[in-house]
Amino acid sequence: MIQLVAADLHHVNSVILDRMQSDVSLIPELAGHLIAGGGKRMRPMLTLACARLLDYGGARHHKLAAAVEFIHTATLLHDDVVDGSGLRRGRRTANIIWGNPASVLVGDFLFSRSFELMVEDGSLKVLRILSRASNVIAEGEVNQLTAQRRVETTEDHYLDIISAKTAALFAAACRIAAVVAERDDAVEQALDSYGRNLGIAFQLIDDAIDYVSDAETMGKGVGDDFRDGKVTLPVILAYARGDEAERLFWRQAMEGSRTSDEDLAEATSLLRRHRAIDDSIARARTYGQRAIDVLGPFPNGSAKAALVEAVEFAISRAY
Amino acid sequence: MIQLVAADLHHVNSVILDRMQSDVSLIPELAGHLIAGGGKRMRPMLTLACARLLDYGGARHHKLAAAVEFIHTATLLHDDVVDGSGLRRGRRTANIIWGNPASVLVGDFLFSRSFELMVEDGSLKVLRILSRASNVIAEGEVNQLTAQRRVETTEDHYLDIISAKTAALFAAACRIAAVVAERDDAVEQALDSYGRNLGIAFQLIDDAIDYVSDAETMGKGVGDDFRDGKVTLPVILAYARGDEAERLFWRQAMEGSRTSDEDLAEATSLLRRHRAIDDSIARARTYGQRAIDVLGPFPNGSAKAALVEAVEFAISRAY
Repeated sequence: MIQLVAADLHHVNSVILDRMQSDVSLIPELAGHLIAGGGKRMRPMLTLACARLLDYGGARHHKLAAAVEFIHTATLLHDDVVDGSGLRRGRRTANIIWGNPASVLVGDFLFSRSFELMVEDGSLKVLRILSRASNVIAEGEVNQLTAQRRVETTEDHYLDIISAKTAALFAAACRIAAVVAERDDAVEQALDSYGRNLGIAFQLIDDAIDYVSDAETMGKGVGDDFRDGKVTLPVILAYARGDEAERLFWRQAMEGSRTSDEDLAEATSLLRRHRAIDDSIARARTYGQRAIDVLGPFPNGSAKAALVEAVEFAISRAY
Repeated sequence: MIQLVAADLHHVNSVILDRMQSDVSLIPELAGHLIAGGGKRMRPMLTLACARLLDYGGARHHKLAAAVEFIHTATLLHDDVVDGSGLRRGRRTANIIWGNPASVLVGDFLFSRSFELMVEDGSLKVLRILSRASNVIAEGEVNQLTAQRRVETTEDHYLDIISAKTAALFAAACRIAAVVAERDDAVEQALDSYGRNLGIAFQLIDDAIDYVSDAETMGKGVGDDFRDGKVTLPVILAYARGDEAERLFWRQAMEGSRTSDEDLAEATSLLRRHRAIDDSIARARTYGQRAIDVLGPFPNGSAKAALVEAVEFAISRAY
């Protein structure tokens, strides 16, 4: 995908760098740490690749892709405060370096700046899509907060959470390409669906990786979710398939009274015994396949190939 | 002002209550604590009163006034996290009751919901005004964070900060009334100026009150700013007018090594000696007078009287 959108991405990066500036130097300093530091620009690349799929020839999507990345970055800054994280993409998080107050406020700066970019573009439809997505994300994050450490969370409830907190922005990033390319509602919905299913697949793989990867490949420590008491799909499956003793273990683990390396080893062993990781990946693959199938009616070519590849790449991270 | 806008405010409150709902029950619970709990609805009332001043007969301003209140509430939620506050308007703050994570995320929910309300209204001009104001607020808050505990902050720098963090939303709340009433740019600018000057006066009085009021009238403890090392105008004036020993005292106080009740008493005595409180109030009165004067060309009547009264009330809180 990177090759397909390289020229466009160059423009998007210019907008990002230009519009994260401020006379208050802490703002570009902190924002730059996250934006420059290893961000994969996945969401803006989706906007660009979808615009390419629709043969869009204009330049409006550069500003809007930057707006999407600003929303994502604001979310990350607030997430790290909410989770008390110390490491992201293998680097110290902004809240560790500059403190929680700065992370909260620079997040607000980027979030409001993203709306300024959309207003400059002038499409009420885009504004509707991205303000809705932002609201759904925040609602999903609060929902996750409520579910935190509750091992009884159902798979359906968990899918609701990640549909909101992760997949909504993937969907919106793709959908706005249909708006700028002035395509009909069916195309909007198809790209929304592609993004949403890719987003769910992406998050499920992230959840699986947390139990199998190491800090080097993942940019966060193995077992971070485990130690934070985050009830993700692998845990939900292992809990459902375990016996009473195992369920007690998971309950204690998620409530925070079993967070040692031995406990993590025990958790990993239980996940393996119940095929909870493999099945989480299989679920992810199903969503990934749905994302690919929705592209079926679109014309073949390099853009479609890149969007299919994006799904395959998201899944392949688990191997 | 309350009498003038009572009927409209009733509609605004309905929108607020209706649109802060969510299936995630923590959201209305937490938002309701702040929104229902003693909020004066000052900013939405300004929108309503300015619309009345312009003889606006429609209902668009109800939704937009609710959007303004949501932005304000989101800012308060994030402020309390940033300041680590425990008390606001005499009640425990949301971050104390539900924790910082919930306050950050519900703030994000209300902020994005405010943009959804604006999109429903459909005016790009209003969206531009309020996204700009939101961005300026966030920038001002980061700016204040940078200035925190720095007693060398100049009066000009301080005015920049409060123009951004407080006055920008007052200005925007008034300005959007001119947009919905479809009045020309001169009217927009006049109402913007009224709101901005009122906002600065309001903040300067708040700063003065912190050194003279008690928790009962103010809803926060006396000397909160002092103990938090917040460099406000009274401190800036006393520092400038003090001798070397006094400047050392202020430096130590703002850096946090002099926060006892005796230190606060010493601070209050220095402020009194240098007329720093009285002169802060005098500065506030000047801005208040500018706000009143800008209303001059508007037709006399109950709306204008209410807007003048709002300025006088803001100032009178210091007595």
